[in-house]
Amino acid sequence: MLRLWAPLASSVRLEINGGVHELTKAQHGWWSSSHHLHHGDFYTFEVNGTSGLPDPRSPWQPEGVHGRSCYVDHSRFEWNDARWQQRPLSSAIIYELHIGTFTSDGTFDAAIEKLDHLVNLGITHVEVMPIAAFQGEHGWGYDGAALFAPHHPYGGPEALKRFVNACHQRGIAVLLDVVYNHLGPTGNYLPKFGPYFSERHNTPWGSALNFDGPDSDEVRRFFCDNALMWLRDYHIDGLRLDAVHAIIDTSAIPFLEQLASEVDALRAHLGRHFVLIAESDLNDPRVIRSPELGGYGLDAQWSDDIHHSLHSLLTGERDGYYEDFGTLEHVATSLRRPFVYAGRHSSHRRRSHGRPPVGLHGHRFVAYLQNHDQLGNRAHGERLCNLASLERVKIGAALILTSPYIPMLFQGEEWAAKSPFLYFVDFSDEPDLARSVAEGRCKEFSAFGWEPGDIPDPTDDLSFHKSKLNWAALSEDQHSEMLRWHKSLIAIRSQLSELTSGRLDLTASRFSAEEQWLEVMRGPIRILANFSSTGIPFSINDQSHVIALSSNPACRVIANELHLEAESIVILATQQIVDQLSLPGEDESVVKPQGLERRSRKLDRV
Amino acid sequence: MLRLWAPLASSVRLEINGGVHELTKAQHGWWSSSHHLHHGDFYTFEVNGTSGLPDPRSPWQPEGVHGRSCYVDHSRFEWNDARWQQRPLSSAIIYELHIGTFTSDGTFDAAIEKLDHLVNLGITHVEVMPIAAFQGEHGWGYDGAALFAPHHPYGGPEALKRFVNACHQRGIAVLLDVVYNHLGPTGNYLPKFGPYFSERHNTPWGSALNFDGPDSDEVRRFFCDNALMWLRDYHIDGLRLDAVHAIIDTSAIPFLEQLASEVDALRAHLGRHFVLIAESDLNDPRVIRSPELGGYGLDAQWSDDIHHSLHSLLTGERDGYYEDFGTLEHVATSLRRPFVYAGRHSSHRRRSHGRPPVGLHGHRFVAYLQNHDQLGNRAHGERLCNLASLERVKIGAALILTSPYIPMLFQGEEWAAKSPFLYFVDFSDEPDLARSVAEGRCKEFSAFGWEPGDIPDPTDDLSFHKSKLNWAALSEDQHSEMLRWHKSLIAIRSQLSELTSGRLDLTASRFSAEEQWLEVMRGPIRILANFSSTGIPFSINDQSHVIALSSNPACRVIANELHLEAESIVILATQQIVDQLSLPGEDESVVKPQGLERRSRKLDRV
Repeated sequence: MLRLWAPLASSVRLEINGGVHELTKAQHGWWSSSHHLHHGDFYTFEVNGTSGLPDPRSPWQPEGVHGRSCYVDHSRFEWNDARWQQRPLSSAIIYELHIGTFTSDGTFDAAIEKLDHLVNLGITHVEVMPIAAFQGEHGWGYDGAALFAPHHPYGGPEALKRFVNACHQRGIAVLLDVVYNHLGPTGNYLPKFGPYFSERHNTPWGSALNFDGPDSDEVRRFFCDNALMWLRDYHIDGLRLDAVHAIIDTSAIPFLEQLASEVDALRAHLGRHFVLIAESDLNDPRVIRSPELGGYGLDAQWSDDIHHSLHSLLTGERDGYYEDFGTLEHVATSLRRPFVYAGRHSSHRRRSHGRPPVGLHGHRFVAYLQNHDQLGNRAHGERLCNLASLERVKIGAALILTSPYIPMLFQGEEWAAKSPFLYFVDFSDEPDLARSVAEGRCKEFSAFGWEPGDIPDPTDDLSFHKSKLNWAALSEDQHSEMLRWHKSLIAIRSQLSELTSGRLDLTASRFSAEEQWLEVMRGPIRILANFSSTGIPFSINDQSHVIALSSNPACRVIANELHLEAESIVILATQQIVDQLSLPGEDESVVKPQGLERRSRKLDRV
Repeated sequence: MLRLWAPLASSVRLEINGGVHELTKAQHGWWSSSHHLHHGDFYTFEVNGTSGLPDPRSPWQPEGVHGRSCYVDHSRFEWNDARWQQRPLSSAIIYELHIGTFTSDGTFDAAIEKLDHLVNLGITHVEVMPIAAFQGEHGWGYDGAALFAPHHPYGGPEALKRFVNACHQRGIAVLLDVVYNHLGPTGNYLPKFGPYFSERHNTPWGSALNFDGPDSDEVRRFFCDNALMWLRDYHIDGLRLDAVHAIIDTSAIPFLEQLASEVDALRAHLGRHFVLIAESDLNDPRVIRSPELGGYGLDAQWSDDIHHSLHSLLTGERDGYYEDFGTLEHVATSLRRPFVYAGRHSSHRRRSHGRPPVGLHGHRFVAYLQNHDQLGNRAHGERLCNLASLERVKIGAALILTSPYIPMLFQGEEWAAKSPFLYFVDFSDEPDLARSVAEGRCKEFSAFGWEPGDIPDPTDDLSFHKSKLNWAALSEDQHSEMLRWHKSLIAIRSQLSELTSGRLDLTASRFSAEEQWLEVMRGPIRILANFSSTGIPFSINDQSHVIALSSNPACRVIANELHLEAESIVILATQQIVDQLSLPGEDESVVKPQGLERRSRKLDRV
């Protein structure tokens, strides 16, 4: 039976194969028809006399977001992942990728060919940027319009299933980025069907979605069903919920809590593990606390404070939100407390911000040195390796990959790819919209002193093509060196429960702002970083072994003194821990130190 | 030292006695001057060249909200309440009153003369409708403009202190209704001083106050300081926070939680008890849960569901929000669960509403048969006794006053005063605003089928004068009968801990929709109500004693059968409880029943 929600409609018709089928009004604004759709059927709806409308829950839009919907029978795909179970988030290494730029073809099938690279790297989860159908061929995906339809230029529904299946066969879980806070500026036909939007709240992208006003039960149904569909029909292992701070909802049972509860029910029903990860700018532990403690019950959330602390220290940038960061104290704090702003005043926000996430473990937070936003929201989409020396980037990578959080890499970060991740859209069929987006981008950056001519045009195809990873470059020395560094760090992390424990109470840090060094203790594992341009001696005891160092000759050990060269980082552990480790063959960074007492400072466990 | 917050100003001057004093910019948008104000000094501010602005924190506006501010030295008043402590909310009987209409003079001093009546009635707390200065002579007070200044026509600061002092001397606590969700449409000079308002959220009254945007720390400071001022400088015992659902705030530490925490600190500092009671339309236990469980930590909240259930059953009304209520099931539910809508679908709201307040006691909820809104938001401001028979009103009163909640009466309710409580404003100096308010009122009620000519004009002085209580009528029979009924019920409640316990787990109810009877068990106390137009027999055991009945001959007891007349209510208790009771002399409703088995139904404890 076919069903459609259109509570304010006076008539609804299904248009298919040149014929028209009347739908009958049922309860709660739903309409139904006894007509059955078959795989590959092209169809549209007519509502109140407006014909040719795509299905709000269209499973496929092969003609684009303005075109006809095409029915998909999900039972046809042959899955090979019956026994698949994802690893727990606590031991995850996430890899964020964007289907359109991850490979030169920019499709799900092309992405499959790169999975072995991720397996070798030690990735456990890929996180795929939004793939719900949006206008044009290419784009970031946050302007999705047909939220149930995998983007046709990426390969559509079948190709997405092949991709997920291939990931599972290699032991990789798939997280999907979904946008439940707004719809794209074109192709959004939802308002023709019902009150999906509300004027009671505003978001940076216009009217908010209606999660708490009249008829919001069915709007929530739409988004919950969307989440459940990806998990059930596409075997997705979890969702990354875009910008939950833009979901304004004053209900006693907020949408996000309902979503978590429904996903939990599906977990129980299917016997599979799912995770929900929020992007949140609120620094509010409510997002991830359990409902019993007044929370939404999501599994984890991103923490921008960790990124901002590291990025501004490594690059020296202080523009925009980086004005709140930039000192070693911020970095030292962020490595033991996921919210640097947990109630203190933020200059950038001009208000107090955040709340301490008391009692929550480190693996409720995703930490990253780079992500699509932190690159792409720059005027020129630069990666960190274009802004800081490779040695400093290595320090950042090591701090993230030894942190008590869930580490995440952005595509190409592991080999210090140089391609930018620019902002790009393909609104070539809608020149007015394209112009407005291009102008909006220039206006946004004019606040930072950029002239319009300095800003790459997001509507220019070149912005898209420049953003593709150039895998051919991977064979170059500096890239393979960086890749080795990441492999070592991931190998160490994956073998040492002290690093993946998430125990913030067993994590300590201290630093010298003057001498620019940082020490992080993860239980018995000691990480020493030298951000300065001169070598620094540290006292170590004779039980300490170097298990990773960012470059030779980064570290000279003389008696009980370890001399850490400028811009380098070293990981120290006891013999007992070294004995557990089996590092990649190409890595020879495990050295045994010899002692010499340090002159001026005694560095004991904090 | 004089201080003023004006973060966006480039110049600020104090204007006083024909002179001008420059203020100096300090931190966080504050300006200061070494000039000292003295009691009775009239002054204004000049900001960015605009002169004559009243102080946002003006303690007195004797010339009206557009006039000069007048400084008040709070240390001058001689208080006589040094040892005063309010009774806990659990045993409170609240009395809501509106200074302008409570007496014919409409002042704080005139209200003092009625306090002995309240003492005799058994009132423990008065709740005073908003008294922050608003435009004109009379009004409800929800369009306050000078939030720190007691309304001058009520008598100003000194008179408010005399009123509070007089209450305390009589053992009555004073709760004050404060409006922290919007400001009135005229006299609001806050935007001249700083970003007190935000465009990110909308309320029914326009832009929302800025509790979560840039500079919101100092906006919160303004409102928290306002709350603390009433409690500290005016010896107010608690605040009723108007419409907290219109305080939209997505912060990790919401304004209401901060407010509760600051009031708590003042509690500790002064060694006095304060209470915070929210008006909330959210049916969200978060409002009153402790911060440890994700709540704001307020002490109690109003529950409209209890009112709506009773009102619609007693009157038969089903318009507007009453469409969600009207059955005995709603009433029976509301008397053991403060939220009838605790997750279920509301037809009126066209969405699911509320959440079960699991684990919260009954005295976290204020229950009332009438309040200013439930009268005044009707086209003709009718009281319940104008809409239902006195016998039915008596049933309602008894159910509220035997409920597990904090009972609240509205001025005159105790003697079934007939005067309406119309909506009224005094915008006579601002004819355009007056016209717009009058038109808005007509438009609002046109949705319910009212013609403009049928709606009393809120800008007509007659609407104000008609709303004044006519105390002379109190001597009439039906009024004194109703007053006796209320006195009896309050006397019973105040003496029986079984009634004030708030233990919802010891409260049960059942009903027959067909026969229109309701039974409520409060531990060993049994309340039987007959809403039908014929008598109903109930079986009782021979340990049952009638401790109150709504009218003679409401109740005939023959053997083990109690015959309850049409539209009446009886309260039954054991001999042990009767022995504890000492009822007012004029009350002779305690009778000893004799037994007779009821034919068709056996009513045991649920």
